[in-house]
Amino acid sequence: MAGIRDAAGFSAIVCEVLRHVPTPALVVDSDALQANIDAMAAQARDAGVLLRPHAKTHKTVEIARRQLAAGARGIACATPLEILAMANGGVQDLLLTSPMQDVAKTSALIAAARLAKLSVVVDHPSQIELLREQMQAGGRPLTILIDVDVGQRRTGVCSATDSVALARLIGDWPDAVFGGLQGFAGQVQHVLDPAERKSGNAAVAATLCDHAQALGEAGFACADVTGSGTGTFEFDIAGPFTELQVGSYIFMDADYGRVQNHDGQALPFRRTLYVLATVTSVNRAGELTVDAGVKALALNGPLPDVFGGLPEGSSYRFAGDEHGVISLPAGTAPPQPGQRVLIGATHCDPTVNLFSRLHAVSADGATEEWAVRARY
Amino acid sequence: MAGIRDAAGFSAIVCEVLRHVPTPALVVDSDALQANIDAMAAQARDAGVLLRPHAKTHKTVEIARRQLAAGARGIACATPLEILAMANGGVQDLLLTSPMQDVAKTSALIAAARLAKLSVVVDHPSQIELLREQMQAGGRPLTILIDVDVGQRRTGVCSATDSVALARLIGDWPDAVFGGLQGFAGQVQHVLDPAERKSGNAAVAATLCDHAQALGEAGFACADVTGSGTGTFEFDIAGPFTELQVGSYIFMDADYGRVQNHDGQALPFRRTLYVLATVTSVNRAGELTVDAGVKALALNGPLPDVFGGLPEGSSYRFAGDEHGVISLPAGTAPPQPGQRVLIGATHCDPTVNLFSRLHAVSADGATEEWAVRARY
Repeated sequence: MAGIRDAAGFSAIVCEVLRHVPTPALVVDSDALQANIDAMAAQARDAGVLLRPHAKTHKTVEIARRQLAAGARGIACATPLEILAMANGGVQDLLLTSPMQDVAKTSALIAAARLAKLSVVVDHPSQIELLREQMQAGGRPLTILIDVDVGQRRTGVCSATDSVALARLIGDWPDAVFGGLQGFAGQVQHVLDPAERKSGNAAVAATLCDHAQALGEAGFACADVTGSGTGTFEFDIAGPFTELQVGSYIFMDADYGRVQNHDGQALPFRRTLYVLATVTSVNRAGELTVDAGVKALALNGPLPDVFGGLPEGSSYRFAGDEHGVISLPAGTAPPQPGQRVLIGATHCDPTVNLFSRLHAVSADGATEEWAVRARY
Repeated sequence: MAGIRDAAGFSAIVCEVLRHVPTPALVVDSDALQANIDAMAAQARDAGVLLRPHAKTHKTVEIARRQLAAGARGIACATPLEILAMANGGVQDLLLTSPMQDVAKTSALIAAARLAKLSVVVDHPSQIELLREQMQAGGRPLTILIDVDVGQRRTGVCSATDSVALARLIGDWPDAVFGGLQGFAGQVQHVLDPAERKSGNAAVAATLCDHAQALGEAGFACADVTGSGTGTFEFDIAGPFTELQVGSYIFMDADYGRVQNHDGQALPFRRTLYVLATVTSVNRAGELTVDAGVKALALNGPLPDVFGGLPEGSSYRFAGDEHGVISLPAGTAPPQPGQRVLIGATHCDPTVNLFSRLHAVSADGATEEWAVRARY
């Protein structure tokens, strides 16, 4: 399921329905996107765990709405700007998953808190002080969770003692509600071997349980334990997580396509994200140049792959900010300049971040144009 | 001159004047930017060669205006969207430096041609056909130059015979003017050794002279030979170039800081581009986390460097889309969360492309906010 489907058919539809759209253009297979959303929703429902898909992947209100319609409890965001964009788009339950210490960002949170139930995470007393100073009282109470460093060494408290100290500060603030714990195991998501991934994940679960126990003994019950990702959700649904912040499953990074789950199968999601490009130069034997380069496709993944419009075996390489070069298989006739090529995006979050709009295309040719919001 | 100047002073000014701006924020040292613009303008003037700085680096009308005020003849652009943004910003002489074969992009060129003198490059007969079909007659005639592959293997014709054939097609179109040649030697720009760079450049010059001679013999005089870049301009000002499309010199990629010119000196430009970030997490000994990661700093250069706000010897590494981790020198006290850090952008074009605005800060504390235009 993780591969790309039906290359010739979908590529031809995209080239036809987007023929008036300038390239490079960001394209999602709308039907496969919905199938991914439904597959994750079904797994979470069956396991009795809540979903809070991460908007950092898509930055798109329309995809958040589809995730909510499939049963998600709310949406996770990485930045206050994403929080505000989602609140303005009507999302009613939002969690900021990055500890925030920038006084210039609180206005976005204040605006969002008027529109939606807002939760944030903290990993330091000064963040609670900043929020308490800045966030006006009178609205719905702010829910605050404690971010735990579960081995990623990026954000989060490093001891259960610190968790308890933060919970006491949250408890002292009448307009705040202690919401529980967050732990994101970024270091485990892309481990290919399922046994190794499972044991890495067990250590994460143990850390979170230690913090929850210490908090419980101090009188702070953890209503939620939130975290997880596309690489580990199949383990995380067994606990201690009550809520999964999965993001990439909707588009599927190529790298996740190589992750096997515990039964040796690929993850049950398809790749759905592409960049449509145009052939601009054909003067060199065996290769051609397209108008999609570093400013259209993320660099930090496997090389983008040629999905449609050229012979099987064609391979893409970056050739600067605005260009890519595609090598053709030996003996292949070169295409005409102006022909369009559908390129598979291999690292989705940073690729989406390069575009202001996303073209959703269905197999029946229906298209929608969705705004990518909250880019810096 | 290529290093970063006066770290503590400039960093303190930026932190003060941008204290209400959310991070990550893109910052340029406005005085050093002007010095770079003036230094390049003086070199070109002294050599009697024209300047057409490349807007792909900055995508910013205000910087283009400074370049024009310093004597540039016009502005170069990589995409039709950049052309339209610069024309709307009042730039009167524009060159599209990428051969273009996307019928959906011609509307931007048509709109720009109503506002400015427009030149484009071609490397295939079908591009001339497309332009002839799409570009309405009646305005100023379109100037068309022939893009020559001078060894980069990305775009351009590969033989002088092809150049002559294209010149004939241009000559057959009453609303077009044959403008000469373009050759961009991307393969030479970053060669560190000046002798090696000079000999690579000599081959480029020879190729362009061959094409110009064949065209001359066929009755097509090359009014302009355009190309060059920050890495080779010191050789290119000796000819055959009549016009230099230098881009990076205004910000200076860190990589260009390592290029020596023929007299063993660094290039006469300073680094001027930074990303302002905020410390968000300080729970791990010896390191801290800031709110600037892959979505704020280009990956395809040397690692970004810590310019101000932290002890000398602090080093940045990427930690995901929205985070970076900075290691502190041994024995250094960690900063408080909320402290701001100025990070040096090492690859400038793709970093600018990640932001919608650029904060220009002078040593006297004056600030301007400039829009970054024409992102996809």
